Amino acid sequence: MVVMGRSTNPAAEGSKEARPPSAAGTSAPGATVGSDFLQLDIGQAPSGGRTAWLADRLRSAIADGRLPVGARLPASRVLAAELQITRGVVTEAYRRLAESGQIAGRGRLGTVVVAAPAAPRERGRPPAGPGTALFGSADREGVVDALRALPCRIDLSPGVPDLAAFPRTGWLRAERAVLAGVGPADFGYGDPQGAPALRRAVVGWLARNRGIRADPAEVIIVAGVAQALGLLAQLLRADGVRRIAVEDPGSLGARQQLEYGGHEVVPVPVDAGGLDVGALRASGARAVLLTPAHQFPAGVVLDGERRRELLSWAADGGVVIEDDYDAEHRYDRPPVPALRSLLPEGVCHTGSVSKLLAPALRVGWLLVPPDRLDAAVTAKRYADLGNGILTQLILARLMDSGELERHLRHVRLRHRRRRDVMLRAIDTHLPGARVHGAAAGLHLMVTFDDAQGGFRDTDLAAAALARGVKAHPLSWHRISPGPPGLVLGYAAGPTHEIEEGIAVIGTALRDLRS
Amino acid sequence: MVVMGRSTNPAAEGSKEARPPSAAGTSAPGATVGSDFLQLDIGQAPSGGRTAWLADRLRSAIADGRLPVGARLPASRVLAAELQITRGVVTEAYRRLAESGQIAGRGRLGTVVVAAPAAPRERGRPPAGPGTALFGSADREGVVDALRALPCRIDLSPGVPDLAAFPRTGWLRAERAVLAGVGPADFGYGDPQGAPALRRAVVGWLARNRGIRADPAEVIIVAGVAQALGLLAQLLRADGVRRIAVEDPGSLGARQQLEYGGHEVVPVPVDAGGLDVGALRASGARAVLLTPAHQFPAGVVLDGERRRELLSWAADGGVVIEDDYDAEHRYDRPPVPALRSLLPEGVCHTGSVSKLLAPALRVGWLLVPPDRLDAAVTAKRYADLGNGILTQLILARLMDSGELERHLRHVRLRHRRRRDVMLRAIDTHLPGARVHGAAAGLHLMVTFDDAQGGFRDTDLAAAALARGVKAHPLSWHRISPGPPGLVLGYAAGPTHEIEEGIAVIGTALRDLRS
Repeated sequence: MVVMGRSTNPAAEGSKEARPPSAAGTSAPGATVGSDFLQLDIGQAPSGGRTAWLADRLRSAIADGRLPVGARLPASRVLAAELQITRGVVTEAYRRLAESGQIAGRGRLGTVVVAAPAAPRERGRPPAGPGTALFGSADREGVVDALRALPCRIDLSPGVPDLAAFPRTGWLRAERAVLAGVGPADFGYGDPQGAPALRRAVVGWLARNRGIRADPAEVIIVAGVAQALGLLAQLLRADGVRRIAVEDPGSLGARQQLEYGGHEVVPVPVDAGGLDVGALRASGARAVLLTPAHQFPAGVVLDGERRRELLSWAADGGVVIEDDYDAEHRYDRPPVPALRSLLPEGVCHTGSVSKLLAPALRVGWLLVPPDRLDAAVTAKRYADLGNGILTQLILARLMDSGELERHLRHVRLRHRRRRDVMLRAIDTHLPGARVHGAAAGLHLMVTFDDAQGGFRDTDLAAAALARGVKAHPLSWHRISPGPPGLVLGYAAGPTHEIEEGIAVIGTALRDLRS
Repeated sequence: MVVMGRSTNPAAEGSKEARPPSAAGTSAPGATVGSDFLQLDIGQAPSGGRTAWLADRLRSAIADGRLPVGARLPASRVLAAELQITRGVVTEAYRRLAESGQIAGRGRLGTVVVAAPAAPRERGRPPAGPGTALFGSADREGVVDALRALPCRIDLSPGVPDLAAFPRTGWLRAERAVLAGVGPADFGYGDPQGAPALRRAVVGWLARNRGIRADPAEVIIVAGVAQALGLLAQLLRADGVRRIAVEDPGSLGARQQLEYGGHEVVPVPVDAGGLDVGALRASGARAVLLTPAHQFPAGVVLDGERRRELLSWAADGGVVIEDDYDAEHRYDRPPVPALRSLLPEGVCHTGSVSKLLAPALRVGWLLVPPDRLDAAVTAKRYADLGNGILTQLILARLMDSGELERHLRHVRLRHRRRRDVMLRAIDTHLPGARVHGAAAGLHLMVTFDDAQGGFRDTDLAAAALARGVKAHPLSWHRISPGPPGLVLGYAAGPTHEIEEGIAVIGTALRDLRS
C-alpha cells in the first residue's frame, strides 16, 4: 500500500476548500489513497471485466465518501502494480471516471476526485413498477419530470449536453472577476429586461453564431426557453390569439407550456423538408411554434422553399416563434441561418445556454418584433423583475472572452464521438431501426417500420427502464399517431454507457417481439 | 510622492485576478498610489470641506479607472503628510469610501480599492425635466422602475439593504465549495420546486428566525416575492377569485403585480394596529395581501387583536397572503412571529433574500396551504422550470453554515446607526414631520400634518430629485387620498449621504412652502 503525504503545494486548486462538510472522518482531501484503503480485491473482478469492475469500485468509493472530493488517486502504474493488473486497465478505468466527470487530471498534483456521482439512488436498478405506470398512462402531464426523477443506470433522455464538461474553473474565475468589478448598486433591483452587459454579449453571440443582427435594446434575458414560451403565450392571449400551431412530432414540453398558457395547440405535420407550411396555412392558426434549424425530435432542417413560404405567411400577419434550442451543435452540415435573421419584424426568436453549458443555469434570451417589445419587457418584469445578476454577468464574461465558443468547440468533439458510437451501436443492436436527424444537435430519433413494428414504443421504453436505461418514447412527442420510435440523447454520457444502453434497448426490443 | 513597489504577498486576496479589463494602461493593481498620481491639489479644497473634497476626488479616480480595483491607497499618515492636512481628514475620507463599498482594509496589504462606484452617470446632477414629468404624471405604471433609472447623487428610495456589505468573499468561497461538490447531473434540468438542499436550509431559516415549522416538501423556491405574488395571482384566478384586498397605504409594486395578474385590488385602511380586519370583512374580498410583521410603508405591526380577527377570517375561508419582506430586520422591538406559524392551512407565506443579502439575486420562497401545493409547484414549473441551481446551492451553504445570520447581525448594526442618523437629521431639517415605523425594517415613513401640508408630496419628491436626492412620495403607495409624506430608505447608503439627503429635502420643502 502506498499512502503519500498531504500535498503542500499552495497552488493546488481547491485542494482544501473543495472539501465538502460530509468528508469529515474519511480520507483527507489532498492525500493520495491506495488500494488498501479502498479494499480492492482483484480476486472479485470477473475475468475479462476488470476495467468495468475497477471503475465501478472507484465510483462507489467516491459516492459513499471513502474517496472525498479533493482526494488524490494513486498513479496508474502504482495501482496497477499493487493489484497486479496491466496499467492499461487502470488508465481506462480512470478515463471512464474522467469522462463522467468524477475525477480530473490536475498536472503535478496527479489525478484527483472533483465531484461525487449523481445521487446514490440513481446507481441501483429500479423496481419495474413506477416505469410501467409512467409509460402505461395516456396522461402525459408531468411525465418528463416524473421520468427524470426515477432512478436509472444509464440515461439516454434527450435534451442535455455533456454536463461533465461544465467549465467549473472558468466559471469560478469569471465569478471572481465579476465580484471584484461590480459596485453596490449592481446588487440592487436591476433592469428587468436583463443586465446590459449580457444583452450586449448575446447580440455578439447571435451575430457570430446565428447570423442575427440585433441591438441590445431588442434583447430580453429570460429564465430559459420555457419562460420565453410562457411569456409569449401570455402576450398572444392578450392579443386574442387562442390557438397556436406546433410541429407534429414536436417537443412535448413546449406543447405543454403553450397549453398551460391557455392555448389550444394545432398539430401541423413535419416531413423531410420540415414543417408543412401549406398545412399551417390551412389550419387557420395565427401563430406557430417551430424548430427550423434542427427540428425536435426528427432532426430535419426547414428547407429553402418552406422557409420562403413560412416568411410569406408571416408577412401576411402570422406570428412565427423560432425555438433555436440547439442550433449551435452541428457535425456534418453547414450552419442554418436563423429565421429571425431574415424577417425581424415577423419572428420571435428564443434560445438559451441550456444546450451550450447547462440547463440548470436557467438563462436564455428572447427577441420579439419591435411592436411587441414593450409588452414583452413588461411581462418579464411582472414575471420576476428580471434574472439574477451574478449569473448574467458571468455569462457575459464567458461570451465576450471567447470562452463559451471554446467550450462549444470542445464539447462538439466529444458530442460527435458519442454520436458516432451511438450510430454504430444502433447498427449492431437495433437492426432495421431507421435513424433520423443525426447530422446535428444532441439527440437522434429512431423509428421502427410498420412491418417490424406492431408494438408500442412506451412498452419499449418501459422495458428498457426496467433494465436501468432511460429513453423517451417517440409517441410522447407525437400528437397524431405514427410508427413507434425512440428519441435518444447521446451528448450527456460517456461512450461505454451509450454502447451498453443501446445494447440493453436491443435486448428489450427482442424480448418485446418474442 | 510615494510609489511603493508591487505587493508580492501571494496571499493577497484577488490582487491579480481582481483587475477588470478596463484597467489596462492605468495604475497597476497591487501598486500603492500617491497623491501625485491622483493630481490632488489641496489648494482646490474648500476650507472646512476638505474631507468631502478628498473623498470625492478619490471616488472620481476610482470611477474613471485611475485607481483600478486592486490598487492600494497610500497609508493615511503618508497621504496626510503629502497633502499637509491632518491625518483625521484622510481617515474620515477613507471611512466614507469604505462605507460606500469602494475600498476595504486588507490587513498587511493596507487599504485597497475593491469596487468601482455605481455607473458614472449616477454621479452628476440630473436635468430637472425627467423627474418633473415622472412625479407630475397621475399614471403610476412603471414609475418605480423609471425613478430607479434616473441619475442622482443620493438615493433614499426604500427597499434595499446595505449592498456595500454584500459578503463577496464568503459568496465566492461558498461557490468554490459548491462547484467542487456538485455532480454532472446537478447541471441538468432540476426539481422545479427548488433544490432540496436550499428547501431544507430555508426550513431551518424560517424555524430559527420566523417561528415557522415546515417540511422541505412544503417549500417552493421562487425568483423573489414578485414571482411568488405573480404565481398566487394566477392560482387565485384559476379558483375564480378576481378581487384581492390590499393595505392602504401599501406597496405600489405589490399592488401592480396583482393588477397585472388580472385582479381588482380592494383598498383596506391601515392604522396604528395594522390592517383594519373589520373593513376587510366588509369588503367581501376572498383574499388579502398584507405585511403583518412590518407594514409597508407605515411600519406598524399587526396587533394581537387584529391577528386573532384575521385568523378567524381565514378559518372562514379567506386566503391570507403574508408578505414577510423584511421581518428579519428589527432594532427596538421583539420579533413578531409569522402568521404562517399560527395557521399553516390558511396562510400563504412569502419572503426572500432581497432584504437579507441583495435583491439582484432574485431568490425567495413561497409556502402555500397543503391543498394548493401541487397547483403552486405546477405554476412554478411552467413559469421557468425552477430557479438556477448554483445560486440556490450557494445560499443553502450560507444559511446552513450560519454565515447568513452573521451577515444579518453585521448589517443590523450598520442599519441601526444609519436609522439613528436619519432620525436626527429629520429632527433637524424637517421640523414638524411625523415619523412612523422606525423600530424595524430598512425604511421609515414621514408625514406632514394637514396644517403644515397643503403641498403635494410628488412635488416635494420632484424638487428633491432636481437637487439630486431620490425618495418615494407616500402618495405613490396610497390608493385613497391622505396627508403628504415620504418613504425614506436609510439602509443602503453611508451616514453622511443620509444627513445630506435629508438636509436637501428640508431645503426643497422650505422652497415649496415659500
